[in-house]
Amino acid sequence: MDVDPKSLTWAEKLAMMLENSQGQAKSLGLALESATRVGAVLRLPWQETLVGNPATRVLHGGVITTLIDSACGYSLMSYFESLPDIATLDLRIDYLQPAEPDRDVFAGAEVYKVTSSIAFLRATAFQTEGDPIANAVATFMLGANAPKYNARQG
Amino acid sequence: MDVDPKSLTWAEKLAMMLENSQGQAKSLGLALESATRVGAVLRLPWQETLVGNPATRVLHGGVITTLIDSACGYSLMSYFESLPDIATLDLRIDYLQPAEPDRDVFAGAEVYKVTSSIAFLRATAFQTEGDPIANAVATFMLGANAPKYNARQG
Amino acid sequence: MDVDPKSLTWAEKLAMMLENSQGQAKSLGLALESATRVGAVLRLPWQETLVGNPATRVLHGGVITTLIDSACGYSLMSYFESLPDIATLDLRIDYLQPAEPDRDVFAGAEVYKVTSSIAFLRATAFQTEGDPIANAVATFMLGANAPKYNARQG
Amino acid sequence: MDVDPKSLTWAEKLAMMLENSQGQAKSLGLALESATRVGAVLRLPWQETLVGNPATRVLHGGVITTLIDSACGYSLMSYFESLPDIATLDLRIDYLQPAEPDRDVFAGAEVYKVTSSIAFLRATAFQTEGDPIANAVATFMLGANAPKYNARQG
Repeated sequence: MDVDPKSLTWAEKLAMMLENSQGQAKSLGLALESATRVGAVLRLPWQETLVGNPATRVLHGGVITTLIDSACGYSLMSYFESLPDIATLDLRIDYLQPAEPDRDVFAGAEVYKVTSSIAFLRATAFQTEGDPIANAVATFMLGANAPKYNARQG
Repeated sequence: MDVDPKSLTWAEKLAMMLENSQGQAKSLGLALESATRVGAVLRLPWQETLVGNPATRVLHGGVITTLIDSACGYSLMSYFESLPDIATLDLRIDYLQPAEPDRDVFAGAEVYKVTSSIAFLRATAFQTEGDPIANAVATFMLGANAPKYNARQG
Repeated sequence: MDVDPKSLTWAEKLAMMLENSQGQAKSLGLALESATRVGAVLRLPWQETLVGNPATRVLHGGVITTLIDSACGYSLMSYFESLPDIATLDLRIDYLQPAEPDRDVFAGAEVYKVTSSIAFLRATAFQTEGDPIANAVATFMLGANAPKYNARQG
Repeated sequence: MDVDPKSLTWAEKLAMMLENSQGQAKSLGLALESATRVGAVLRLPWQETLVGNPATRVLHGGVITTLIDSACGYSLMSYFESLPDIATLDLRIDYLQPAEPDRDVFAGAEVYKVTSSIAFLRATAFQTEGDPIANAVATFMLGANAPKYNARQG
């Protein structure tokens, strides 16, 4: 059965985009859990290959960052209801506790401020809601400014 | 031909450890470029599956973070000449410019301060030396403190 | 009239401590607005001498940081109901908009996670509640670890 | 004796600007130590009123931040050889060790990357050169973008 894209909600469109995406989001098997006006929640299914420390089977911190960074990107799409021209400017992550093996990880992000050129987000990764494993704040360049990286070196 | 581990330099041992590692470092194909008393440089071979934005073929920011986080871990091993009991506490990354497609990315990290419980590192990701694509600072918990995450929630 | 300290609530004790404090908190005239189990709100009265840019009369960013850092310290006192042995480990501030001249600034902090050696806080500075001028995340060293800074250099 | 401003080097002009500045930089008594094409070093004279913890007489962390933030601002002036329209976007500070009482503190900042809208800096605060007390990375908005903070709230 074919789906008429016009009949989809924005959240359904986002979920479809993520499903059809290529690259790292696809490799990791990221899925959209939910999307609201200011944010999105993604799910990362447990995968043995994403372990950072085989002795403890704790996920690699970088994988958590990838998940959080992706959740921020989808939150911005949800916020703007489009595919904005964005680039991560900076990101800070605090790791609160290791992820438990054999369990999916979720990341929820929220756009909390938007200026003409910068979006500010906060995000949380968790396995059990309310018990975060990592906390992040991030800024993204927006629009025409996003790709202006033909900079001169200081 | 068998290698007598005792005859290896520390850098050779590190390279061997990384080669034999499981999990995410292995999946990404990370390799040790060099190691000194205060740091290590890792190489991430170009892979289409690590792309964040298929339109531009720019690597996913999270992959750069994984690479940087791993370079920090190997720098700490190099610094302590052992496998210390460590946990990333926090990490901040500034993205300076997108990675160019079809080229390997390197990350060099340096331990610049160690206290009884915390190590401070800085790291840079680059494709051409001296032209960074991302800059990071990180703190790691050391030793007996590292796994104490049986915390109470505020 | 004398006050019997035993009859004071913890918030009243905190307010008195801040009033009697010496140093920078005193110089800036910081006052306690409120304190709860997980956080505290401080007020910085408007002062022309704290301006960063005389042309715009916007407060110096460093003053906002001082206010936020102090709010974190008082939040930890409130959380532990004591004067814990603490040291700021790191702090990240995002500046969302400039402070308006001639108005007090408030900073509210919240302890959201505590491990055996680290406390994680988030904080917000604002003039109008719900319209933040800066957002911060911070980690503090706790207890016996806090002053162990007789470190060796990397 | 009058000084002809045209005969001054850029570093001398910067020093004069800082001396004639109002507000927080003036209150703290900040002075320019040196300026180069990519950076500037400021000096903060020891002052008892800037102490954060009277028991240990350690300077308040926020004062170190003010010093570092100012050093970044003067570094940008030095880099652009003008008074650019700038705003601190975000700043991360790692505190490595407490400042020793009764000694001046210095902060050196360096502009290491400039795009059309963002400048990236790193900075260090120290009392003895080569033995940092704090390390920072910061991003500043540049030019026409800097004051665009009439944003909508997320």
